[in-house]
Amino acid sequence: MAGSPAIWLDGERTTALPLPDRGLDFGDGLFETLLVNQSRILFPQLHMQRLEHGLATLRFPDTDSNTMALVGQQLTLACEAIQSWRWAALRLTVTRGQGPRGYAPPAHPAPRIIIIATQLESNHQAMRPAAQLALASIRWSSQPALAGLKHLNRLEQVLAAAQAREAGADEALMLGQQGNAISVSSGNLFIVTGGRLLTPAIVDSGIAGTRRRRVMELWAPAIGLAAEEATLSTADLESADEVFYSNSLVGLRPVASFGGRQWLDHPVCEALYSQYLGEMV
Amino acid sequence: MAGSPAIWLDGERTTALPLPDRGLDFGDGLFETLLVNQSRILFPQLHMQRLEHGLATLRFPDTDSNTMALVGQQLTLACEAIQSWRWAALRLTVTRGQGPRGYAPPAHPAPRIIIIATQLESNHQAMRPAAQLALASIRWSSQPALAGLKHLNRLEQVLAAAQAREAGADEALMLGQQGNAISVSSGNLFIVTGGRLLTPAIVDSGIAGTRRRRVMELWAPAIGLAAEEATLSTADLESADEVFYSNSLVGLRPVASFGGRQWLDHPVCEALYSQYLGEMV
Repeated sequence: MAGSPAIWLDGERTTALPLPDRGLDFGDGLFETLLVNQSRILFPQLHMQRLEHGLATLRFPDTDSNTMALVGQQLTLACEAIQSWRWAALRLTVTRGQGPRGYAPPAHPAPRIIIIATQLESNHQAMRPAAQLALASIRWSSQPALAGLKHLNRLEQVLAAAQAREAGADEALMLGQQGNAISVSSGNLFIVTGGRLLTPAIVDSGIAGTRRRRVMELWAPAIGLAAEEATLSTADLESADEVFYSNSLVGLRPVASFGGRQWLDHPVCEALYSQYLGEMV
Repeated sequence: MAGSPAIWLDGERTTALPLPDRGLDFGDGLFETLLVNQSRILFPQLHMQRLEHGLATLRFPDTDSNTMALVGQQLTLACEAIQSWRWAALRLTVTRGQGPRGYAPPAHPAPRIIIIATQLESNHQAMRPAAQLALASIRWSSQPALAGLKHLNRLEQVLAAAQAREAGADEALMLGQQGNAISVSSGNLFIVTGGRLLTPAIVDSGIAGTRRRRVMELWAPAIGLAAEEATLSTADLESADEVFYSNSLVGLRPVASFGGRQWLDHPVCEALYSQYLGEMV
């Protein structure tokens, strides 16, 4: 079954999206990447809260609560259909749907809900091997009004991920317009330095990750650390005791190298990963 | 026929886009909005040059020249099919096509070419009545690496256009992150002040419009003006002798009001519009 994703549009199995759609035309929509373990979505509330906040910020008017209810129903449907898959990634996309030509959204948009389920081969309980981290030349744009949201305008991360691959690295560090470290292309960044756990604030750019939130609210306190938001330079990374990143599919992944620096041990990342595992089972 | 667009995907008539597609997933692609007069695209070279530059910047690798050739063929096909339409808007979208899950583009992408043709009812030779201009609270993000391109990440303009409508205005002025005027939601901005024709530089944000380019290279010189790039504040707009904007569908459209200011006459915009008309026939 792997390799052939299962796709739903508004609760019906499909293979294609009716055109036009404002998600394609303008990136007018939001998405979530959900890790599913034997039909069970991990941390569903964190994803749904971010999505609901995004719908409100993008002003999907009057339909938000209805859209959220439909999202819930359709995720349940998709999860039931992939019961036989041990691990799956669900890409949930909500677009503002069809609309007349032009940037202005229709007065009464009919959002579309697209779910693409892909079977995952590897065991997502095991922590991934430490990543080689390159530096992306493309930076995050500065846009406080949309920072944090997982909207569909993701070209910068596409270019950063391409640069990581070209550099032979696993991931790429992305800076903001001021040159501070913000994230990697697919996840939030953390460093450990002098016993402190630091992560860039998501104010001008970047995505407010679900696992980042969990680290800050639960997993770090559980191991006796208070995660703090801080302004981080590339030099701060290179001089850190430990570097790792978080996203919904890997959970937490340690960084093995960046710039001139290598890290062999990742005790804080491992301790946090144990907390993550504890919530998984 | 109006109201029902004609759609082509890779040269075949269709109504839907096979999923997944990176254009929807990440806004990984580019577009052009073409005005078509009885099967003839206006200023095709300007659109094709911008598209080709965009494909190169987004690193659609090895396929650019082939993609451009296919775009040309498929536009010809679409234009032949809508011969009976006096005026039409063609939305040409090029995405990086299908790809594996995740931000990184496939090593060998197969771009998709989508053309959506919409019949236009009004006479596109006549200059549109002067527009009421509101101020959008959403600003352009700052992203020098992508400024100028007509890529698919257009959420800021969607929100600005929504604000224009909510304000009862025809268009909304969009500022950059530093608070300078950059454009309106759907076009480039010009002001006339003390006999000078000024337009914001497209350096950190905004789209390098085809009609903006024509104004600067041809139409302004033809009426004895040199269009200059300048840093413009909202106060500069309010104190200007004339304000107008440009895009591919309206050509040039004068602004009737902004902030506390109203303009009744638009002699420079009208003179430039005559130049535009001269190239249309």
